[in-house]
Amino acid sequence: MPHKFRLIVLICWLMALASISCGRQPATRDETQHDPLPSWNDTRAKQALVAFVVRVTTPETPDFVPPAERIAVFDNDGTLWSEQPIYFQLAFALDRIKALAPQHPEWNNREPFKSVLAGDVNSALAGGEAAMLQIVMASHTGMTTEEFERIVRDWIATARHPRFNRPYTDLVYQPMLEVLAYLRAHDFKTYIVSGGGIDFMRPWTEKVYGIPPEQVMGSSVKTKFEMRDNKPVLARLPEIDFIDDKAGKPVGIDKFIGRRPLMAFGNSDGDLQMLQWTSAGSIPRFGLLVHHTDAEREWAYDRESHIGRLSDALDEAPQHGWVVVDMQRDWKVIYPFQQ
Amino acid sequence: MPHKFRLIVLICWLMALASISCGRQPATRDETQHDPLPSWNDTRAKQALVAFVVRVTTPETPDFVPPAERIAVFDNDGTLWSEQPIYFQLAFALDRIKALAPQHPEWNNREPFKSVLAGDVNSALAGGEAAMLQIVMASHTGMTTEEFERIVRDWIATARHPRFNRPYTDLVYQPMLEVLAYLRAHDFKTYIVSGGGIDFMRPWTEKVYGIPPEQVMGSSVKTKFEMRDNKPVLARLPEIDFIDDKAGKPVGIDKFIGRRPLMAFGNSDGDLQMLQWTSAGSIPRFGLLVHHTDAEREWAYDRESHIGRLSDALDEAPQHGWVVVDMQRDWKVIYPFQQ
Repeated sequence: MPHKFRLIVLICWLMALASISCGRQPATRDETQHDPLPSWNDTRAKQALVAFVVRVTTPETPDFVPPAERIAVFDNDGTLWSEQPIYFQLAFALDRIKALAPQHPEWNNREPFKSVLAGDVNSALAGGEAAMLQIVMASHTGMTTEEFERIVRDWIATARHPRFNRPYTDLVYQPMLEVLAYLRAHDFKTYIVSGGGIDFMRPWTEKVYGIPPEQVMGSSVKTKFEMRDNKPVLARLPEIDFIDDKAGKPVGIDKFIGRRPLMAFGNSDGDLQMLQWTSAGSIPRFGLLVHHTDAEREWAYDRESHIGRLSDALDEAPQHGWVVVDMQRDWKVIYPFQQ
Repeated sequence: MPHKFRLIVLICWLMALASISCGRQPATRDETQHDPLPSWNDTRAKQALVAFVVRVTTPETPDFVPPAERIAVFDNDGTLWSEQPIYFQLAFALDRIKALAPQHPEWNNREPFKSVLAGDVNSALAGGEAAMLQIVMASHTGMTTEEFERIVRDWIATARHPRFNRPYTDLVYQPMLEVLAYLRAHDFKTYIVSGGGIDFMRPWTEKVYGIPPEQVMGSSVKTKFEMRDNKPVLARLPEIDFIDDKAGKPVGIDKFIGRRPLMAFGNSDGDLQMLQWTSAGSIPRFGLLVHHTDAEREWAYDRESHIGRLSDALDEAPQHGWVVVDMQRDWKVIYPFQQ
């Protein structure tokens, strides 16, 4: 097709003339053209974040990091979405216990189920870790992986947060959605590294955060490959496989990613070791803690909270240069629906 | 810049006229322009592979699969590189035992180490799984993850395969390197799902196969996060974490990727469940087995071999439509250095 060929040559020549290309734009381009983080106030937190990204993505500068090594890890609960008044996955587990109750008449006389069914969460959780484990196993195991995925999808689509009367996935932080998109626009791979259940997150993280299942890490139960009716399934067993929290986070990162992240985002002491591990690399790294300071628009809690306790990591932040986001001061909006 | 703006509009108009775009080319483009698999003879195996890729990557056809869901999984030993006369990782372990022997005088009187040091591999392995476990733990654990990575890098750079007197990474299959590149050119994510050690592969898979560490799965030992001299490290413990073989392969795929692959490549009964799991999906899938039939250029072995035994999977291949590659007949060259 000589006519088409001449046209392509003409286009290439014109493109050269206009100094445009089909490839990625240089790192600083969108900073000068538009604000990639419009929901962030122009405070030190935003400035430090943008400065770091420019620093590691500007070609032919000393701290340039090749795209393949641009790994950013994000805690989920309290970092990408809210975690009050109870972890959203716990709300799922409690709803699930209620849905399953008709098949388990024995639960009416057995704790922690009895209290769950009576709507008394505090009494249900009075049994501590053992009670929690019973609730998790009863609600999260005993089905195939495909069945569990459907159960999570259904719940996420229908359940409503008690304070805002909205789907739980509406309670994601608009400023963090902007960070995720901003980093991906600069060739970062964005990962979730959560203490929450890996299979509770994967059904919806791609749609909500733009993070595909293979970039989601979390706590897990064991699964078993079985043939059922001549069809292979993975059965979810009532046995913990991995707890992706605290010292488990760097272990999980090494296991799943196999390289040290360049940036780490968390909000609690459960993220301390992930941030320590990230910051211990030989090249510049970035750590950030979301500090929940906004009782009006979200919740305010830190050192004394039993959900998302932030104390040791807050104390360590200055020595590592971790950015501490003051939600009230640094974020213009919290949730997308408030825009 | 109104002048530049007018130029860009002109370019867009011309591009529309020429029906070109800056995005990926349609799937069939490189098939018609050049052969993406030049080391494959034009037999049924190659035809089936190309036909499948065209089928799932041609937009606006019934079996089109969006890029995000294009996952291809590859076994490593015997599928991407050779595995004879012993698994290459076992050669690494034996070399490592010899290197460590001066620090372990007790090994001179203790099996399986005594036989390893005497160069008698058969006697060393006569102790079966327990002996193998001792060799693996002594050679693969007791150091940090960073130290182990350096040890593997050094060995891979210096060790030579006994038959070819070349680095082990020269013994990769040229036809499979072409498949990996071909699939990535069609927006597939290529993963390794190996029974071998995850940390034995990750230091070199990116360079050799173009597969980054985060897309490598394998068997693993437990690691522990520790502070040493105020610096966090991950210590490799002498305890199995996960065996990524046989029924462990679909379990590992679900754990690491969280979606069912579209294509699976293996060579032994260790890959059977991975292929079964892949083929059980609701949309068209592709399975391939490399059958080692070339005693002259590589090795010939299948049903009776204790390395890479291929028997049950070979029997199941027809009912699932898995392609069985006859290395002798289907591959023009085996290794890149033979080109």
